Amino acid sequence: MHETYHKLLDRVRDLGRLSSVKALLDWDQEVMMPARGVEARAQQVALLAGLEHEWLAGDEMKRLLDGAKFDASDEDAAVNARETRRLHERSARVPKDLVEEIARQTTLAREVWVKARDTSDFAHFAPMLTKLVELKTRVAQAIGFETEPYEALVDEFEPGARVAEIERTFSALRDAVAPLVKRVLAAKRRPDESILARTFPKERQVAFARRMAEALRYDFDAGRIDVSAHPFCTTIGGYGDVRVTTRYHENNLSSSVFGILHEVGHALYELGLPAEHMFTPLAQPTSLGIHESQSRLWENFIGRSREFWECHYAELQRAFPEALGNVSLDDFHRAVNAVRPSLIRVEADELTYNLHITVRFEIERALFTGALAVRDVPGAWNEKMERLVGVRPPDDRRGCLQDIHWSIGAFGYFPTYALGNLYAAQFYEKACADLGDLPSRIRRGDLAPLLTWLRENIHRHGQRYRAADLVRRVTGKPLSVEPFVRYATSKFEAIYR
Amino acid sequence: MHETYHKLLDRVRDLGRLSSVKALLDWDQEVMMPARGVEARAQQVALLAGLEHEWLAGDEMKRLLDGAKFDASDEDAAVNARETRRLHERSARVPKDLVEEIARQTTLAREVWVKARDTSDFAHFAPMLTKLVELKTRVAQAIGFETEPYEALVDEFEPGARVAEIERTFSALRDAVAPLVKRVLAAKRRPDESILARTFPKERQVAFARRMAEALRYDFDAGRIDVSAHPFCTTIGGYGDVRVTTRYHENNLSSSVFGILHEVGHALYELGLPAEHMFTPLAQPTSLGIHESQSRLWENFIGRSREFWECHYAELQRAFPEALGNVSLDDFHRAVNAVRPSLIRVEADELTYNLHITVRFEIERALFTGALAVRDVPGAWNEKMERLVGVRPPDDRRGCLQDIHWSIGAFGYFPTYALGNLYAAQFYEKACADLGDLPSRIRRGDLAPLLTWLRENIHRHGQRYRAADLVRRVTGKPLSVEPFVRYATSKFEAIYR
Repeated sequence: MHETYHKLLDRVRDLGRLSSVKALLDWDQEVMMPARGVEARAQQVALLAGLEHEWLAGDEMKRLLDGAKFDASDEDAAVNARETRRLHERSARVPKDLVEEIARQTTLAREVWVKARDTSDFAHFAPMLTKLVELKTRVAQAIGFETEPYEALVDEFEPGARVAEIERTFSALRDAVAPLVKRVLAAKRRPDESILARTFPKERQVAFARRMAEALRYDFDAGRIDVSAHPFCTTIGGYGDVRVTTRYHENNLSSSVFGILHEVGHALYELGLPAEHMFTPLAQPTSLGIHESQSRLWENFIGRSREFWECHYAELQRAFPEALGNVSLDDFHRAVNAVRPSLIRVEADELTYNLHITVRFEIERALFTGALAVRDVPGAWNEKMERLVGVRPPDDRRGCLQDIHWSIGAFGYFPTYALGNLYAAQFYEKACADLGDLPSRIRRGDLAPLLTWLRENIHRHGQRYRAADLVRRVTGKPLSVEPFVRYATSKFEAIYR
Repeated sequence: MHETYHKLLDRVRDLGRLSSVKALLDWDQEVMMPARGVEARAQQVALLAGLEHEWLAGDEMKRLLDGAKFDASDEDAAVNARETRRLHERSARVPKDLVEEIARQTTLAREVWVKARDTSDFAHFAPMLTKLVELKTRVAQAIGFETEPYEALVDEFEPGARVAEIERTFSALRDAVAPLVKRVLAAKRRPDESILARTFPKERQVAFARRMAEALRYDFDAGRIDVSAHPFCTTIGGYGDVRVTTRYHENNLSSSVFGILHEVGHALYELGLPAEHMFTPLAQPTSLGIHESQSRLWENFIGRSREFWECHYAELQRAFPEALGNVSLDDFHRAVNAVRPSLIRVEADELTYNLHITVRFEIERALFTGALAVRDVPGAWNEKMERLVGVRPPDDRRGCLQDIHWSIGAFGYFPTYALGNLYAAQFYEKACADLGDLPSRIRRGDLAPLLTWLRENIHRHGQRYRAADLVRRVTGKPLSVEPFVRYATSKFEAIYR
């Protein structure tokens, strides 16, 4: 290894270590920290964030990047240099005062948004949203883009993604899903979702969530499950320390069961990144869309399949005999797959979920082309919800104020959720083809071959391939909506007949 | 405030923040981290330790210290500058390769010590101990000292302490305590310690430990109790986040009850440091001896007093009716104050504990003057134990290999334990005089006045005064053994008649 590249790699690893310490500060704050620790925590986070920016954006990093020599055949070095340069340039191009202004405004905006949402008062949030769109437009201009400012923002979360391409994909998806949703909603036979809102004592949910994590082969020597207000997964120590959280509500079984399957799906991706490259881009997830594909694959494609519950339903009934003793496997399976146009994204079913995303994608994009004014967001939101999902929000609390993302400046994040669903379907179809009779393996609880397949084909590559290339490489085809449509059609026609 | 001093203070605060992040890494490792996170954790700690050393010992800090101007009347600035310069100089004087060599050797030594202790094989540990004494002698020489190398090492933990002074104090203490121990051991009436080894279910110990912490007014909005192999207290977020740990053994009530009183005593000190000076020397403990005085005051002077259990014993009996239902308050009080010469320091009673420390102090000192060779440590240990404590260790596992301190290079740490006991006695005697009828307050559970007194007289000063000055300032007298001897004589003569 050339010494120049070795120096760069040392710095890159230090950056990874620093960022993982920040992850611990965040995890601790959400899960463990006593309330009065908040002032010190803010100072600790600010110190490390400042250092991180200095190390990433500074001249020293530029010198290391410009000076790093490595053999043309050294693919690992090429990936680490490429991805570090990408982050360096994104970071170095944005002026420090703009970064600080955004940090200030989002701190304020989050408070304003909470109040606006709670009182369903969009006018209260509108000036902040205007300000944030303006600031993020300046960020996009500083970073640069080929087509439209929104693309530079999406690129933060889904490197290399093209907005026009996403638009075509979402449009094809909508065209294919809409008639399916219509048929499902016309079906006479409706699932009884109320069984999931019976009484499920917390401590038994805790034990069952742990069992679900074990069923997915989550390694508790390399992770933990804790409780937090909003479930998340975070990597604190590379391949050896990836933690998830969930929440337990006595009258909501889905929240903990599918929440844990989702977060453990994220964790399995992080745990499958190559240990020998810890703290470098080769051991980082390649995009949020690919990350979400892993969580949704385990949550939905496996976790909501009939085969999975053929394996685990008896155990679930034993855990909650009062609530589920008289509920058949079929009724349970239908309940966890109920399709119902609804107002809230995070509660949406597999079929309508992507339509919620399309609403947000179209609105974000229009805000940054200038085609949509901030004051017109609620109207546009409600019109699109009615047209795409089939329900009209009665207020902005359950409409355009429901998500935290804009208040923290995360524009361009939403599309990665729907892309994740599509990647998941395309990967899963290929895994089924490669692994032979996957359904009967799932029925036996034998999930190891699927995990091995995911590690081999997806996890171990880290950032070696951009999302679009990874999909092509793994499945032999570019991303398309067809695998998802095939999966959804077959699944929901069987459930709804 | 002069701009030059302001810049220094910014740097000092950043150092404090960095060090508090390291405290979180340590806490998490002991309490939360999954086993396989250890490799990443070692790298994270090494990164921050390196940064800390660079910031503290580097030329930039020297420039800031040399350039800092402040008004002669600004006592706060003088303290912060004095204490920061002290740390800077200690740190800058020790060559980097020596620091790294010690880090390497102690990592090895800890493993070697564990094995040597478990097999009671001093010869296995001796070469490491020789190496560490040699390295630490070089550290002492680099730092500088007036009298003997050991003084520079003690100074790390008890700034300003003089070895000859400690020797005089320990010798006076031994002379006064020895006849008392003799009288106590001659007493006919022996406490029945076996009642503390009955069955105390863990979950009820957890609840009772929490109640004890509340009784001492530990604020759970600024702290937590968790479980770890070795109990400790750590400050993660200044006045707002000070956490303690303990351990629960079903057949050992003392371990959790007095363990929690001890650690909460430490925590109350940290929580009483002035919030407005967070992350500066004015909000740091002034010495380990003073720290220990706070833990021992709450654990022993309060927690093992008859008045404390007059207040809490009924509650303890309700928590453990099977074990304590038929045990009188008197018998319980005697059991938790049983005096018995024993081999293990951490299990020693209040009277003989300080004699264990004297053994270690004399041996450490002799190792660094060269009067004692490493190979002669076991013999010296056993001879001193027999002469001072009255028992001769049958093997080195229960003799000179019992403590971890030497294996981690912490020479000069032991004396702070006994100094803590003496400071505690002198402070407590003064608090009793100032507060009037403290015993009847304790009996009523009214501990607030004592905590207020400690905050006012000790906690709020941070590092404003060195330990010896603080004692003189608070009690009007230099440190002496008399308050401890008065306390111990009165207490144990009452118990043993």
